[in-house]
Amino acid sequence: MIIILKQGVSTREIADVVARVEELGFRAHLSQGEERTIIGVIGDERRIDPAVFEVMPSVDHCVPILRPFKLASRDMRPENTVVRLNGVRIGAEEVVIMAGPCAVESRSQLLETAFAVKEAGARVLRGGAFKPRTSPYSFQGLGEEGLALLAEAREATGLPIVTEVMAPHDVPLVAEHADILQIGARQMQNFSLLHAAGESGRPILLKRGIMSTMEELLMSAEYILTHGNFRVMLCERGIRTFETYTRNTLDINAVPMLKELTHLPVIVDPSHGTGQWRLVPAVARAAIAAGADGLLIEVHPRPDQALSDGGQSLKPETFHRLVLEARRVAEAVGRKL
Amino acid sequence: MIIILKQGVSTREIADVVARVEELGFRAHLSQGEERTIIGVIGDERRIDPAVFEVMPSVDHCVPILRPFKLASRDMRPENTVVRLNGVRIGAEEVVIMAGPCAVESRSQLLETAFAVKEAGARVLRGGAFKPRTSPYSFQGLGEEGLALLAEAREATGLPIVTEVMAPHDVPLVAEHADILQIGARQMQNFSLLHAAGESGRPILLKRGIMSTMEELLMSAEYILTHGNFRVMLCERGIRTFETYTRNTLDINAVPMLKELTHLPVIVDPSHGTGQWRLVPAVARAAIAAGADGLLIEVHPRPDQALSDGGQSLKPETFHRLVLEARRVAEAVGRKL
Amino acid sequence: MIIILKQGVSTREIADVVARVEELGFRAHLSQGEERTIIGVIGDERRIDPAVFEVMPSVDHCVPILRPFKLASRDMRPENTVVRLNGVRIGAEEVVIMAGPCAVESRSQLLETAFAVKEAGARVLRGGAFKPRTSPYSFQGLGEEGLALLAEAREATGLPIVTEVMAPHDVPLVAEHADILQIGARQMQNFSLLHAAGESGRPILLKRGIMSTMEELLMSAEYILTHGNFRVMLCERGIRTFETYTRNTLDINAVPMLKELTHLPVIVDPSHGTGQWRLVPAVARAAIAAGADGLLIEVHPRPDQALSDGGQSLKPETFHRLVLEARRVAEAVGRKL
Amino acid sequence: MIIILKQGVSTREIADVVARVEELGFRAHLSQGEERTIIGVIGDERRIDPAVFEVMPSVDHCVPILRPFKLASRDMRPENTVVRLNGVRIGAEEVVIMAGPCAVESRSQLLETAFAVKEAGARVLRGGAFKPRTSPYSFQGLGEEGLALLAEAREATGLPIVTEVMAPHDVPLVAEHADILQIGARQMQNFSLLHAAGESGRPILLKRGIMSTMEELLMSAEYILTHGNFRVMLCERGIRTFETYTRNTLDINAVPMLKELTHLPVIVDPSHGTGQWRLVPAVARAAIAAGADGLLIEVHPRPDQALSDGGQSLKPETFHRLVLEARRVAEAVGRKL
Repeated sequence: MIIILKQGVSTREIADVVARVEELGFRAHLSQGEERTIIGVIGDERRIDPAVFEVMPSVDHCVPILRPFKLASRDMRPENTVVRLNGVRIGAEEVVIMAGPCAVESRSQLLETAFAVKEAGARVLRGGAFKPRTSPYSFQGLGEEGLALLAEAREATGLPIVTEVMAPHDVPLVAEHADILQIGARQMQNFSLLHAAGESGRPILLKRGIMSTMEELLMSAEYILTHGNFRVMLCERGIRTFETYTRNTLDINAVPMLKELTHLPVIVDPSHGTGQWRLVPAVARAAIAAGADGLLIEVHPRPDQALSDGGQSLKPETFHRLVLEARRVAEAVGRKL
Repeated sequence: MIIILKQGVSTREIADVVARVEELGFRAHLSQGEERTIIGVIGDERRIDPAVFEVMPSVDHCVPILRPFKLASRDMRPENTVVRLNGVRIGAEEVVIMAGPCAVESRSQLLETAFAVKEAGARVLRGGAFKPRTSPYSFQGLGEEGLALLAEAREATGLPIVTEVMAPHDVPLVAEHADILQIGARQMQNFSLLHAAGESGRPILLKRGIMSTMEELLMSAEYILTHGNFRVMLCERGIRTFETYTRNTLDINAVPMLKELTHLPVIVDPSHGTGQWRLVPAVARAAIAAGADGLLIEVHPRPDQALSDGGQSLKPETFHRLVLEARRVAEAVGRKL
Repeated sequence: MIIILKQGVSTREIADVVARVEELGFRAHLSQGEERTIIGVIGDERRIDPAVFEVMPSVDHCVPILRPFKLASRDMRPENTVVRLNGVRIGAEEVVIMAGPCAVESRSQLLETAFAVKEAGARVLRGGAFKPRTSPYSFQGLGEEGLALLAEAREATGLPIVTEVMAPHDVPLVAEHADILQIGARQMQNFSLLHAAGESGRPILLKRGIMSTMEELLMSAEYILTHGNFRVMLCERGIRTFETYTRNTLDINAVPMLKELTHLPVIVDPSHGTGQWRLVPAVARAAIAAGADGLLIEVHPRPDQALSDGGQSLKPETFHRLVLEARRVAEAVGRKL
Repeated sequence: MIIILKQGVSTREIADVVARVEELGFRAHLSQGEERTIIGVIGDERRIDPAVFEVMPSVDHCVPILRPFKLASRDMRPENTVVRLNGVRIGAEEVVIMAGPCAVESRSQLLETAFAVKEAGARVLRGGAFKPRTSPYSFQGLGEEGLALLAEAREATGLPIVTEVMAPHDVPLVAEHADILQIGARQMQNFSLLHAAGESGRPILLKRGIMSTMEELLMSAEYILTHGNFRVMLCERGIRTFETYTRNTLDINAVPMLKELTHLPVIVDPSHGTGQWRLVPAVARAAIAAGADGLLIEVHPRPDQALSDGGQSLKPETFHRLVLEARRVAEAVGRKL
């Protein structure tokens, strides 16, 4: 960390700041500029809050030098993390497609979708049993019954399951039925849930919050990693911007940027990232061209009957076409699909 | 809800949309414009998702007509809700000041602050025992020990306590020690927690998320209200913007706008809203001038030793001056403090 | 436009709104919902401001039905607009690459870059003579001297030139030397400049403002189109978000969304869209996979000596590799490059 | 500026960066941390772009130490700048109210408003002759005819005039008729216009862009100040956020923050800052309580007939009440009005 002092501070004030740095167990390195004096804080700055210095009257502001995440960083682990489950390898050469309905609505809806996405090329089945909804008046998901249906769909198709868990006390139940636990965008900083996810030992699909930076996403991953659970996949699913023609703005930059910053696999969700089914195929192709390790896509046999997110769900035949097009792009960038 | 059809739709397509509207239990009202046909959906639109129509090929988009919150709206309850506790009335004539440290750090730190803020004019003591932190390496709060210290401070000073609860399973424990349960900005859409808060029957201080709209804040309040718990206070604590000179941007418009939309009291937190102690007094005065029912302010006897948020904490003497200045503004707008 | 009235309005108040609608030359269409009365305004709503009704005491709010742009919309012109210049066709099957230095710095720098990008496959040469800079202390461009160098580079290489014009009174001068006039992101709503660009008759590259919606971009294009100048290319170059690890956030959704909304070609600038040269190739590939008609890329022979934007400029050899990779993606999505 | 090197750089690479620093005319100061080496750049960093170093392969990133504005900073000029015109002093003890219609529409509309706002307590008359509008189909202002009407209103009432200028070539004309030249939010980074405003020698009211930071606002002011024109007033008029219930979000933090950063007067525009007339009085009071030096308020005798911004315009009687309430708040914070 660098401490930048105010203009015209006295020798005495400088000495006070140096003393505070040393009192906290760091070494201080003084540098006299033309207009300002700055003090370098030598040691592991992740342990301290810049405010500790910023409240001192002679301090103007502090600048952190190190990235605050450790376990998630590529500096720590230069090799890509590969999450293996049921023969699927996420984070390796293959671009893995996870697809299925936004919400599990019924046995027939789920099974019909599951077989369709499997045939089209999906390797993981998605489906929500617990649904986070802005309004208490909206459909909240089938809950435990939905989990049982997902387990049945796995039996029937052999596809591993990814589904959202919303509360720490539901983690054991969901972990019993699902292969991958999804932490939703709105829960990205639900720290109790992150701890429970870390303890579960299960692969985690961590979605970036619609208002969160990549650094915050990586810090939330760090919460899970500190429990020794390294099977974490990051998911870019669009952020909130001023644009109104699309529901969210998919941050395509995040794909190469995260691949540079971290060893964890990066999944892209073009369904939430656009909010409009017509835009999903183009953005799915873009994600692969940018280097994504996987896609998460909403598919529904009859989107006009869907209880949630119908507007961004693909019909099975559109999804099938998407996979064919995506495969060509994957091959153009040296990946498989 | 209004359904706007695409240009050049056929009579048959219009009939299909009308049929779908009626199938869902609504009446349809057709209106032929010069360029577009629109269909009004007559009935309680809060029960349906616009996507149900938007996925139909002849539909361009839908526009909701009604605000999605009911119980929180002033239409439903024109009178101000007044939350009463220990002789304090929040939402009435008096502007109520809640103050105390960001985090409970020790018995002496808490008691010293508690007595100081009481003497200066605070009516409620704040202090965090469970601390949501972006980094797993930051101080996470004293937890249950902190709650016990808060209970002791209440005994000693007579001030009611507001403190954050982070997980649904902690609600009973926190409700045992605290008078008001705070739901933090990052948990505003932690729906499991909102349900638990609703069931607790305790007064709730619900903070607006840093990138949430007022409508989303009111929908989160609605989750609590549907449990019959109407003692909910809304807290504007700053939103994330592009500005870098301040930590957050306090949305002053939200004060009169929320007072118009809802009967619930509106509290302003200028400490998080600015992130810099030097700006807190000016913004606290502004909040009162705009009509806030209360303030939530961080005070620490030695901000340079604080384990969190030292940079935005006031010293007791600065807080005392703030109260005196705020009182003059309160009187200028016909309130008491 | 739909006018939504307040709850409980009287017959008299409804009649007043209807009268106002008709007074302004529109027809009114009344629809009685369960909770609200709404009034459809029949006629070309682009001619009126919703505020005209919103200030009436019985009106809650208005909702526009039609998109506000006409000439730019695909409804008006279903076929793609193709901008032709010097044998290059922008908006047709070929993905057109425009490349060159951020700023023209010297004759040798420009010519060296121009030959290099031509050889690698660029079809248009970019280079700034007038540079909009946040700080008055930064390099402001070579001005007219830069224009002369650009003209010389065109002679030497045969590549048409795109360069920014910043003030209406400079339009004739720049139009004399350049083939395409660029309107920068910060000038997207400089309406005097848009008028002058419309009158110039030259092809225009209109960059989306970092804070602007697609609708605003299309409305700015509309300013140019109303002068009969239809040779307008839209450029997505990243918007401002909360992300700090990248300079801007490239809005990849805008590519398919704009292609659906408008007949105008869509160009993507991954250099400004990311702000980091290491991310440029991945995002360039993504843009093509999403359907972009062209790319605008900064190239500098010695980025560490660049007077502006060195951090996002590619070296010629990296640019050459980018073109090869981009070509494979273009072919995978059925385009040429 | 601080240069932070990558992990594990060699002695040779460090020497290269030091050499580059010195080559550019600065001194380098080396500091060896536990994980990183950093280099302090000693000299006036405002002259260089961090990218100059960031493109070097051994450099991770750079951190500026100094604020980039000089002439606008309070460090340079600790005393408040007071702008004097026609006996009005802006930036002194009095809170100065500028009021009038959004657009000049007719002689009678303007004169009626001018006399009404003068009587209520306004000290400056506002009114737009050149109107920047998102749509080319909206009313664009009366232009030169509007300027003549403004001049007539000044004659009649004695109030000085503030009006917007949109293009550099219009500056002499507008300066002939108006006392204060307004640079609108969308033109805040129209650098040609800023230069012309600087040369005009007239007082300038510089509005903050709707997605601009305070630093960018101050850098735009700096453009004007470098011409020796120090009569610049900054205007906070709301920024774009995700909130949809209000048109913009007034950044109340900007008032005390700007007063700390700069010596220039700070004006607040609650009309644009909220976009809704009902919210204007509360936010106007808040602005004064936070320390604003003046207010800019839209008043129209018949808002429902206004050609622009009717929804945020106050009727004269509401404006009159606002002034009375604002005066009480001004006195409560030790100001006059």
